[in-house]
Amino acid sequence: MKATVAFYAAYLLCLVLSVVCVVLVVHWNASYRGGFAWDHGAKQFNWHPVLMVLGLVVLYGNAAVVYRIPLTWGQNKQPWKLLHAGLLLLSLLFVVVGLCAVFDFHNANNTPNLYSLHSWVGIATTALFAAQWAAGFGTFLLPWSPMALRVLVKPTHVWMGAIIFVLSIVSCISGINEKLLFVLKKNTNGTVPYAKLPPEAVLANTLGVVIMAFGLVVLKILANQTWRRPEPGSEAGEYRSLMTDES
Amino acid sequence: MKATVAFYAAYLLCLVLSVVCVVLVVHWNASYRGGFAWDHGAKQFNWHPVLMVLGLVVLYGNAAVVYRIPLTWGQNKQPWKLLHAGLLLLSLLFVVVGLCAVFDFHNANNTPNLYSLHSWVGIATTALFAAQWAAGFGTFLLPWSPMALRVLVKPTHVWMGAIIFVLSIVSCISGINEKLLFVLKKNTNGTVPYAKLPPEAVLANTLGVVIMAFGLVVLKILANQTWRRPEPGSEAGEYRSLMTDES
Repeated sequence: MKATVAFYAAYLLCLVLSVVCVVLVVHWNASYRGGFAWDHGAKQFNWHPVLMVLGLVVLYGNAAVVYRIPLTWGQNKQPWKLLHAGLLLLSLLFVVVGLCAVFDFHNANNTPNLYSLHSWVGIATTALFAAQWAAGFGTFLLPWSPMALRVLVKPTHVWMGAIIFVLSIVSCISGINEKLLFVLKKNTNGTVPYAKLPPEAVLANTLGVVIMAFGLVVLKILANQTWRRPEPGSEAGEYRSLMTDES
Repeated sequence: MKATVAFYAAYLLCLVLSVVCVVLVVHWNASYRGGFAWDHGAKQFNWHPVLMVLGLVVLYGNAAVVYRIPLTWGQNKQPWKLLHAGLLLLSLLFVVVGLCAVFDFHNANNTPNLYSLHSWVGIATTALFAAQWAAGFGTFLLPWSPMALRVLVKPTHVWMGAIIFVLSIVSCISGINEKLLFVLKKNTNGTVPYAKLPPEAVLANTLGVVIMAFGLVVLKILANQTWRRPEPGSEAGEYRSLMTDES
């Protein structure tokens, strides 16, 4: 019971930080960066941070912890699997559109793609994420995938899931830092430089801190062994697996 | 035996990547950034990336995995504890000198300190690291610290250790990206801009990729339950604790 209360406290924090991340990244780009459009200009670029934070951090993190909710443990796992896979597919979709936003913007402005370390880490994260989703689909969702394969692949799937999340956080922090260095320069139309910490810099730095905090809460939830859904074969899962469809 | 071979393969990779990280960061700053000095100028700044990569990533990561080496499991834990604490104290020392290098450089050039997201994450990492070292010293090294306290604190110490390492990686990647954006600009003394990926950019980006790879190997070693030193009370530790001083 104590473990359950601690879990829900962590989970509530996870949900609150999710909302704060989304509010901050939308507010930053809507109020300080001119809002959104799909016009190959700066307003199209603004979709990039919003979709990456929403997809690669918030949706991804929430999808990762969905099996940890004790409320779901007595229930059939299948709908929760579909929710896990569905949230991650939506996340992947946001990431792809978020990449299109920045590639379109670069191409229209004759800016090369994929030169910064941020972009190298980001594109590697996306590639690993897409491969992880496809491998997860083939192994855990296709009904004819043998149980032995599921058991073999699961630890790697869980480990890779956490690692891709860490890579996402690294991509976001380096990306926010890069964007602020690009736009808050000295002597450009009276812009207050990043070094003087104008309100926009404080806002976007705070977004970075909240993303870090969200990441730590999600990793904490994932790491806690007592918060794992009991599976058939494990002590606690033995009884329940008689009643529910576990796979 | 199979687990031991797998561990030593991972550990060898960890050592090789450690050397590559140090070689790349020294080569970058020695060959492309003008080398090292303690003159409040750009050459003093160059100590910053070198000492941070060496201290916060390489020494820290190697100190974190020291208990995982199976060769040490049959031995008294005390010397390995001293090695763990000693490597981390050296790491902390490098980090403090690395911070002095950048603060001195900023102050001499009238550049504000601690404005970028990189610096916010970095200073938080350092503060947590110093607090973690002090708490670890008080709990695990002082001989009069009660066993009950050690048992209570250990999971948090292990967890915080891994989290501080993740924060270190985030700090390093965002810092390398920031430095390249600062120095590889258009039209400054014929410098090839970052966007055109001159050799320096490829070198420093590669350093970032190698740091990520090193981080993943260390986190993998830390996460593998079968690679943990068996402790008294655990099944495998029961027998050995009769012979060795475990605390």
